[in-house]
Amino acid sequence: MTDAPDAPNRESRLRHFYDRLSTPGYGGDYNPEQWDEATHAEDMTLMRAAGVNLVTLGIFSWAKSEPAPGAYDFTWLDTHMDRLAENGIAVSLATMTASPPAWLAAEHPQTLPVLADGTRLYPGSRQHWCPSSPVYRDHAARLAGKLAERYGDHPALALWHIGNEYGCHISRHCHCEVSTAAFRDWLRKRYGDVDALNAAWSTDFWSQRYGSFDEIHTPRTAPSFRNPTQQLDYLRFSSDELLACYLAEKEVLARVTPQVPVTTNFVPVAKTLDLFSWAPHLDVISYDSYPDPHDPAAGRETAFCYDVMRGLGGGRPWLLMEQAPSAVNWRKRNGRKPPGRMRLDSWRAVAHGADSVLFFQWRQSRGGAEKYHSAMVPHGGPDTRIHREVRELGAELADHPELLGSRPLRADAAILLDWPSWWALELDAHPSRDVTLMSAALAHHRPLYEASVATDVVPLDADLAPYKLLVVPNLYAVPTAAAERITAYVRGGGTLVMSYFSGITDEHDRVHPGGYPAPFRELLGLTVEEFDPGPDGSWAEVIRLEGAEAVDTFDDGSPAVTRHPYGEGTAWYLGTRPEPEAMRALMDRVREEAEVHPVLPGLPPSTQARTRLTADGTPVHIVLNDTTAEVEIRRG
Amino acid sequence: MTDAPDAPNRESRLRHFYDRLSTPGYGGDYNPEQWDEATHAEDMTLMRAAGVNLVTLGIFSWAKSEPAPGAYDFTWLDTHMDRLAENGIAVSLATMTASPPAWLAAEHPQTLPVLADGTRLYPGSRQHWCPSSPVYRDHAARLAGKLAERYGDHPALALWHIGNEYGCHISRHCHCEVSTAAFRDWLRKRYGDVDALNAAWSTDFWSQRYGSFDEIHTPRTAPSFRNPTQQLDYLRFSSDELLACYLAEKEVLARVTPQVPVTTNFVPVAKTLDLFSWAPHLDVISYDSYPDPHDPAAGRETAFCYDVMRGLGGGRPWLLMEQAPSAVNWRKRNGRKPPGRMRLDSWRAVAHGADSVLFFQWRQSRGGAEKYHSAMVPHGGPDTRIHREVRELGAELADHPELLGSRPLRADAAILLDWPSWWALELDAHPSRDVTLMSAALAHHRPLYEASVATDVVPLDADLAPYKLLVVPNLYAVPTAAAERITAYVRGGGTLVMSYFSGITDEHDRVHPGGYPAPFRELLGLTVEEFDPGPDGSWAEVIRLEGAEAVDTFDDGSPAVTRHPYGEGTAWYLGTRPEPEAMRALMDRVREEAEVHPVLPGLPPSTQARTRLTADGTPVHIVLNDTTAEVEIRRG
Amino acid sequence: MTDAPDAPNRESRLRHFYDRLSTPGYGGDYNPEQWDEATHAEDMTLMRAAGVNLVTLGIFSWAKSEPAPGAYDFTWLDTHMDRLAENGIAVSLATMTASPPAWLAAEHPQTLPVLADGTRLYPGSRQHWCPSSPVYRDHAARLAGKLAERYGDHPALALWHIGNEYGCHISRHCHCEVSTAAFRDWLRKRYGDVDALNAAWSTDFWSQRYGSFDEIHTPRTAPSFRNPTQQLDYLRFSSDELLACYLAEKEVLARVTPQVPVTTNFVPVAKTLDLFSWAPHLDVISYDSYPDPHDPAAGRETAFCYDVMRGLGGGRPWLLMEQAPSAVNWRKRNGRKPPGRMRLDSWRAVAHGADSVLFFQWRQSRGGAEKYHSAMVPHGGPDTRIHREVRELGAELADHPELLGSRPLRADAAILLDWPSWWALELDAHPSRDVTLMSAALAHHRPLYEASVATDVVPLDADLAPYKLLVVPNLYAVPTAAAERITAYVRGGGTLVMSYFSGITDEHDRVHPGGYPAPFRELLGLTVEEFDPGPDGSWAEVIRLEGAEAVDTFDDGSPAVTRHPYGEGTAWYLGTRPEPEAMRALMDRVREEAEVHPVLPGLPPSTQARTRLTADGTPVHIVLNDTTAEVEIRRG
Repeated sequence: MTDAPDAPNRESRLRHFYDRLSTPGYGGDYNPEQWDEATHAEDMTLMRAAGVNLVTLGIFSWAKSEPAPGAYDFTWLDTHMDRLAENGIAVSLATMTASPPAWLAAEHPQTLPVLADGTRLYPGSRQHWCPSSPVYRDHAARLAGKLAERYGDHPALALWHIGNEYGCHISRHCHCEVSTAAFRDWLRKRYGDVDALNAAWSTDFWSQRYGSFDEIHTPRTAPSFRNPTQQLDYLRFSSDELLACYLAEKEVLARVTPQVPVTTNFVPVAKTLDLFSWAPHLDVISYDSYPDPHDPAAGRETAFCYDVMRGLGGGRPWLLMEQAPSAVNWRKRNGRKPPGRMRLDSWRAVAHGADSVLFFQWRQSRGGAEKYHSAMVPHGGPDTRIHREVRELGAELADHPELLGSRPLRADAAILLDWPSWWALELDAHPSRDVTLMSAALAHHRPLYEASVATDVVPLDADLAPYKLLVVPNLYAVPTAAAERITAYVRGGGTLVMSYFSGITDEHDRVHPGGYPAPFRELLGLTVEEFDPGPDGSWAEVIRLEGAEAVDTFDDGSPAVTRHPYGEGTAWYLGTRPEPEAMRALMDRVREEAEVHPVLPGLPPSTQARTRLTADGTPVHIVLNDTTAEVEIRRG
Repeated sequence: MTDAPDAPNRESRLRHFYDRLSTPGYGGDYNPEQWDEATHAEDMTLMRAAGVNLVTLGIFSWAKSEPAPGAYDFTWLDTHMDRLAENGIAVSLATMTASPPAWLAAEHPQTLPVLADGTRLYPGSRQHWCPSSPVYRDHAARLAGKLAERYGDHPALALWHIGNEYGCHISRHCHCEVSTAAFRDWLRKRYGDVDALNAAWSTDFWSQRYGSFDEIHTPRTAPSFRNPTQQLDYLRFSSDELLACYLAEKEVLARVTPQVPVTTNFVPVAKTLDLFSWAPHLDVISYDSYPDPHDPAAGRETAFCYDVMRGLGGGRPWLLMEQAPSAVNWRKRNGRKPPGRMRLDSWRAVAHGADSVLFFQWRQSRGGAEKYHSAMVPHGGPDTRIHREVRELGAELADHPELLGSRPLRADAAILLDWPSWWALELDAHPSRDVTLMSAALAHHRPLYEASVATDVVPLDADLAPYKLLVVPNLYAVPTAAAERITAYVRGGGTLVMSYFSGITDEHDRVHPGGYPAPFRELLGLTVEEFDPGPDGSWAEVIRLEGAEAVDTFDDGSPAVTRHPYGEGTAWYLGTRPEPEAMRALMDRVREEAEVHPVLPGLPPSTQARTRLTADGTPVHIVLNDTTAEVEIRRG
Repeated sequence: MTDAPDAPNRESRLRHFYDRLSTPGYGGDYNPEQWDEATHAEDMTLMRAAGVNLVTLGIFSWAKSEPAPGAYDFTWLDTHMDRLAENGIAVSLATMTASPPAWLAAEHPQTLPVLADGTRLYPGSRQHWCPSSPVYRDHAARLAGKLAERYGDHPALALWHIGNEYGCHISRHCHCEVSTAAFRDWLRKRYGDVDALNAAWSTDFWSQRYGSFDEIHTPRTAPSFRNPTQQLDYLRFSSDELLACYLAEKEVLARVTPQVPVTTNFVPVAKTLDLFSWAPHLDVISYDSYPDPHDPAAGRETAFCYDVMRGLGGGRPWLLMEQAPSAVNWRKRNGRKPPGRMRLDSWRAVAHGADSVLFFQWRQSRGGAEKYHSAMVPHGGPDTRIHREVRELGAELADHPELLGSRPLRADAAILLDWPSWWALELDAHPSRDVTLMSAALAHHRPLYEASVATDVVPLDADLAPYKLLVVPNLYAVPTAAAERITAYVRGGGTLVMSYFSGITDEHDRVHPGGYPAPFRELLGLTVEEFDPGPDGSWAEVIRLEGAEAVDTFDDGSPAVTRHPYGEGTAWYLGTRPEPEAMRALMDRVREEAEVHPVLPGLPPSTQARTRLTADGTPVHIVLNDTTAEVEIRRG
C-alpha cells in the first residue's frame, strides 16, 4: 500500500475538517432540491433540535446544477450553503458526479455502460456511465472544478465528497468498445509485451495464446469458463478505472482547494473495489453501513466491516457516512430497526473508530426509488418514534466532545485481507463454489469479536511486527514475496492461524509448483495432497504432516487442524471449516498461547467493549449490549 | 370509467348477437384450416350432436387469408361461413390479427418487439409485433376492413372478435425505437410540459431531471432501480398502446358494420392491461378461463375472475370465450380435469353471469405448440370420456333457454380493484416484495365467496351507493379525490373494510404528505407509523390509534385490526394479513353488522349458490358443489 | 444407420491402430506446450514407469502451431512425436481444431457464435466458433491437411483425433446470419418446396405459414412457445452442421492418409448430437467419461453410457478417451474419487468393451480454467496417492494383453435409443416437463444392469432379430415404418417392453391419427385415452384395454401395466413410472419369460459381471464390486 503523493499534507487538511466540528459528526445526506422553502425552514429548526452538525449536500444535484451542458446554476446551492453556515452546520459537499443528467446519455450514448452479454444499460436509475469513458470523466472533472472555485472558501465547507458509492451498482464493470480499448491499454502497461501476458494468463491452455494486445477482449460472455487470469485482471482493471475517475476529480479539487480534505464513501465490504489500493487517496475513510435487521449475524458482521474501515485508514478514525435510522428499501423484505437498535449500531461504529454518525438521509423522500428508505425525518414527520430516537442520539453524541478525533486502541490481533486473492478465490472452475472469502473471514473474526478482542484488518503489505496474532483465512492467491513476509513474521515470534485453500496460486492465479501450499509448506510443516469438498458443502483437505502435529482430526483419523512451532513462533493450520463452537474453542486456545487479551475482561455474554484514547491518552471504553436486557458492568 | 362514444348503440348491437342464439352459447374456437374436407364434414355432424350453436372462426387465419401482402383469399372462409350458417351455428368472427404472417416481419423487421434488455423477438410463435408499430396497425386494420366488407351481412355473423388475448405474451411491452418515440408522445400528451413530468416523476431524486421529452427512454435495463413513476407510466402506456391497436380495428369495423357488436377476449385477470379502461370499448366482455386442475384454490380464484368480468360489464352478462375441456399444454405439469370437473367449471361461469360456454378448441390439433391442449374432439376422437362430457353439457345448456341474457343478481358487497394502484403496489424497492395485490384480493374475496355472498368487483370511479359493504384490499396508490369518495361512502352509512398498505401514494406514486395513510387517517381513526415486514413474509404495521378501537392486536399488544365508526358508517382496518380462519371470522362479523347475507342460506360446506334473474324477473339459483360427494339442498 | 462410404476399409485402418499397441491403451491427453524441457524429460520417465502406451497430443495446439494465419510452426511437435516414438508410446494426434486462435475471431468476427437471444459469444474460453461458418471450416481443414502431410508416416501416429468434444459447449447451436442462411438451405434440401415444410411444421396453427424459405429463422427468442417442428429440425440441423465440420476434416485426412483410422471423442450421452448419425463416420468410437463421485447412481449410469458407446460401434470395442483420475473442476462441488474408485471405473469401462483407459490429462496444469481438474501427475507430483494408483492400474492393464481387441459378448437384451425422438420428447408445451428420456432409459436399464444382464443399446433401424428382449422407453416420436418394424419383431417371437408416452407423434412431431399410441395400438392391445401427470411429478395414463390384460393397476383399479401376446411374441406396456423396486420385479418377470439370463449367475449384491471374448473365443469375465467390502466369487 503506497500512500498518495499528497499524503504528507493530509494532517493539515484534516485539521480543516475537524476545526469545523466540536463533537462527533452527526447528521446525514441533505437533499433540499426535493423540497419547498417552507420545508427548508423547518429543516433548520429540526436539525438544530436534533444536534445536527454535519450534512452531506449535493449527492444527486448534477442535473439541477448543470441543467444543460455547460450551463451551470449554483444559486440554489448558495442559499443552502449560507443557511447551513448560519446554523453552525458543516458541509461535506458532494461533487455531484454519481448520477449524470439525462442530457449526457442523449448527447453521448457511448457513455452508457455495456454488460458482458452486450446489453447496454440506460438512464432512469443512477450510475449509468462507463468508468472508462473520457467523455464522462471530462464532464465530471469540469463540474468538480466549478464547485471548487465557487465554494472553496465557503465557511460551511468541511470536506469534499467525491462521487458516491463507486462500484455499488452494475456499472462497476463495462464491456463497451471504449472499455475494451482501455483494458488493452491497461494490459500493455501491466505486461509490456504480449508474451509476458501469455505466460501470466497460461494461454497455452485451450489454445488461447494472443499474437497482440489488440486480439484481447474483456471477459465477455463465452461458450465455457473464461480464462481465470483474464477475469482476475479485468477485476483489477475495473477497480483501477473507477479509481481513475475518482482521481480525475480529486486532481482538480486538490489544485483549486489544496486545503480541503477529500473522501468518498465506500459501500459494505464487497469484492467490487480493491479498497486497500483506494485508501491512500482518501484523506479520511468513509463508510456506508446497512446491516439487515432481520439478520441475527448483522451486528458482528458490521463490526468486521468497521474493523476493515479502520484498517484502510491505518488505524485512524473514520466517518460513518451513511446508515439508515430504520428500514431500507432495496432488500426483498425490509424490516424496521426495533427501538434501540439504531442507537446500538451507531455506538458500535463509534466504538470501532467512527468520528461521525451520519444517515441517508435527513428527510424521507416523497417520490423516487428510495422513498421507503427510512430517514431522520420520516414521512410521518417529527412526532414519531424514529425521529425521537434521532434526537436522543444527537444529544448523547453532543455530550461526548472528547470522542471526536480520539484514537482507536491499537489491537494485538490482525486479520489479513487481500482483494486480488479474494477475487481469485471466487473465480469459477474451482474445487467448490462454497469456498468464499467473506464467510471465512467472518468465521475467524467472530470468536475474537465476541470475546472483546480488538482486531485490526491489515493488507498483504502491512507491517506485521506489532501483532501477537495474525489470522489468515483463505489467502488463496499469494505472491511468493508476500508469503515470505508471513513466514518471517512467524519465524520472528508471531503466532499465525492460516486456514484451508491458502497459498495455492500466485498473483496470476498459477498454481505454485511444489505441492500445496508450496510457499507455506515449510512454515506449516505439512503438505495438502488433495481437496475433498463434500456434497453437503463441507470442506476437507487430505493433509500429510511434515513436522506439524495434528491437534484435531477428521473421522478417519487424518489431520484436520495442525500446530507447528516454527522459529520463535507458532503456525496453526485449519484444513477444514469448524463449526462456530469448535472455532471459538480453537481461537481461545490460540489466543491464550499468544497472550492476546480482551479489551475489558469479564464482560457478560453478548456484550463487547472497544476502547478509544482521547487526545490526552485517556482510554474511553465503549461497551455494547447486543441483548434487549439490561446488564451490569463492573469497572475493572 | 367513461364509456365509449358509441356505447348508446350497444343495446341494438347486442340484439344482433342474441338474436342469433336461443340458448346459452356453446361451442369453441374452430380452426378448419388445419383439417381436410372429410374432417370438415364430420365436424358439422359432431357439432350438431353436441349442441354447438356458436363458434369462433379465424383466430389464426391471417397467413391463410393474406398469403402475400395485399393478396387476400377468403374463398376457403366463405365455405365455412356458409356451412356453419346452414347448420344453424352462429359465428364470432375473428379479425385474424393476433398472429401476423411471416412476410410481415420479413418485409418490416421493425414490427418485431424488443425487450427491456434490447433482445429482439422473432417470428415462430405468435404475437410477434410491436404494439406501437404503425405498420402493424395499418396491416391489421386493412384486414379487418376486408373482413367487414365481405362478411358484414353474412347470416352466420353474430359478433366481431378483434385480435386475441391482447397482452398475453411478452409483446405486451416493447422497447424498440418506434415504441420509445411513441412513449415520448404519450408523455407529452399526459404532462404537457416536461417540468410537470419532472414533478410527477420526482426526478430531483437521483439527478433524473429531464430537459426535454426527447431525453426520456422506456424503462430499459438500467444499473439499479428504475424511476417508479417512469415504470408506472410505461405500464399505463403499454395498456393504452394495445388498446389503440384494438380501437384501430374497431373503428373500421364500426364504420362498415355498425350493427355488429365487437369484443375481444381477456386472459386470466393479470396486471397486463387496465381492463377497466378497456371495458367501455367492448360491447360484451369476453373471458378465457384456465384454472389449474392441480390447484385446490382454483375454484374460488376462478370465481373471483368471473366477478371481475361481470364488474367490467357493469353487471351485465359476459361470454366465457375459452376454457379447456381437460388439460392445457403450457404449465410445467398439465393435469387433466377429472370427470365432472369441466361441467362444474362451466356452471360456475354461468352462475357468475356467463351467457356462453366456449372452449379452445373444437378439434385437438395434430401439430403445433398447442397439440396437447385438450379440445372438444380429442385426438382419440368422439368415442372418449372428454367428448361424451362435452355432449352432455351441450344438452344441459340447451335445456335452459331462460338463462340466455338473464341478469346476474346485483350484490350487496363489492371489492374495489384498480389497475394503476396494482401496478404501483408491485413496483420494486418497496417495504416487501411479498405484498401483492392478487393474493390480498383473493384472501378478502374467499370468505365472501365461500359463504355464498354475491360480490361485485368495482373500479375506483364506481357508484358505491348501492353497496352495503365495500372491501378495499391494498389500495396503495390513490388520488385524493378518489379517497374522498370512499370517505364519503362511509360517512353516508357504508361499511368499509380496508387493508394494510393502502392510501400511501398518489397517482404518480408520490407519498401523500401527512403520515400514512394520509387520505384515510380521519376515516380510519388511526395513523400507521411504520411498516414491519417479517423475515417469514409476514406483514405488520405499527398503528397509532386516533379514534379507532383495536379489535385485534399483535403479540406485543399493539393494534392489528381496528374499527372506527365514522359518520353514519363504519371503517374497519387490517394492519396485517390474518390467516384464512381469522379472516373468515372477521368478515363474518363485518357482514353481520353490515347486514350482507348469502344468496341462499344454510348451504352445506363447499357448496355455493349464485342467482340470475330471467327476463320476467324470476330468480334462478345455480348451486355449485365443489366436492365429489352428492349433497342435498332444501329449497328455502 | 448407414455406414460411411469408406467403411469397407475400416478393418485395415483399425489394424494400423492396433498394431501400435500390445496391451490395452493406457495414457491420456498430453499437453507438453504448457511445460519446460526439464518437465518433458521427466514426463518420459514417469510415463514409462506408469505403463503409458498411448497419448492424445495437440488437442489445444492450434494457436501454438499456427501463431499467425497460414504461418505454421510444427517444429515443437516434431520433437514430441519423435520422443514419444522413441519411448514406444503411440499417439492419437489431434487436428487441433476445437479451439481456434484469437486471430481467427479478430480477423473474422462473423465466426463467433450467436445465442437465441442475439448475444454474440467471445473468445477467452474455447469452442467459440459458428458450426456453419465456412471460414472456420476452411481454416480447420487446412490445418488438418498440414498435419496429415507432416505426420502421416510418423511411426508414433496411431490414430487421428478430429476436433474435440463436438457440441460440448454452448456453440453447438448458432443463430447468426450465416447459420440462418445455412438453416434455410438445410430445410430446402430436406423439404424441397416450402409447402412440404408447411405441412410438416403444421404452420396452419398460429398463422405460421411460410411463403418462402427466406422467411424462416432459426428458433430465436420469441414471445411464446416456438413451433415444435422448427425446434426439432433445428436440433437435427445443429447436429448435422457439426458433423459437416467433422467430415470436412475427415475428408482431407482420408485423402492424404487413407491408412490411418479416425475418431473424435463423444461427451457423456446427451441430447446434443445424434450419435447414431455420427457413428458410421468414425473408425472407432471414443468416449469421455466423467461420473460424479458424489452421485450414488453414477456407477450404473456410466455403465449405460458405455453400453451406448458399444452400440454406436455395432458391438465393437471402443476407446475410453478421457476420464479423471480423481476430481474434475466444472461442477459446483468437485469431490475427489476415493481410493480404489478410479480403478473400479476403469475396469467397468473395459468390462463394457473399452480397449483403452485414457485420462484427461497427463500432468495437471498450473494455470487456466482446468487447473483443478485432476491429472495422472497431480500438482503434488509423483509421490502422491493419485499417481500411485495410476501406476498400479497401468501395471494391471499391462498384465492383460488378451483383452486388447477382445470382442464384447453379444447381449440378448437391447434398449432402443433414438435421438430425434428424444429431442421431440423434451420439447416444451408437453403434458409434463418431468417426462425426460434419460431418466426413463436409466430406470429401465438399471434392473438389467444390476442383475448382470448384458444389454445392448440399439438405434431405430437396428436388426432386432438377434434379441430376445427389446426395451423401448418413451419412444415418443416414431415414423410409421419404424413402428411397423417393432411390431414385426414381436410378431416374429420377440418380447417387447414399451413404456408410457410412446408412439404419439411422427418424425415431424405431428400426432399419429387414430388414438394414442396409434402405431402400436394393435401390437399392445390397448389405447391410451388421456395423460394425467400428477402435481408431484408422477405420470399416469388412462388406458382402455383392447385385448391386453392388466398385470398391475392404479389405485382406482384402472390398468397401469399390461401384457399382450401378439403373434409369436409378447408386448408389455407401462402406462406409469414404477418405483425402482417394482421396476426390478417387473423386469425380472419379463426376463424370466423371455429367457434372458445374467452373464454370471449367483453374484453377490452390488456386484456385476460382463464378458469379453479373446481372439481365440475364450470368455474373460470381468467382475465389478461396487462396494468397499471384499466379496468372494465362486466360479460357475
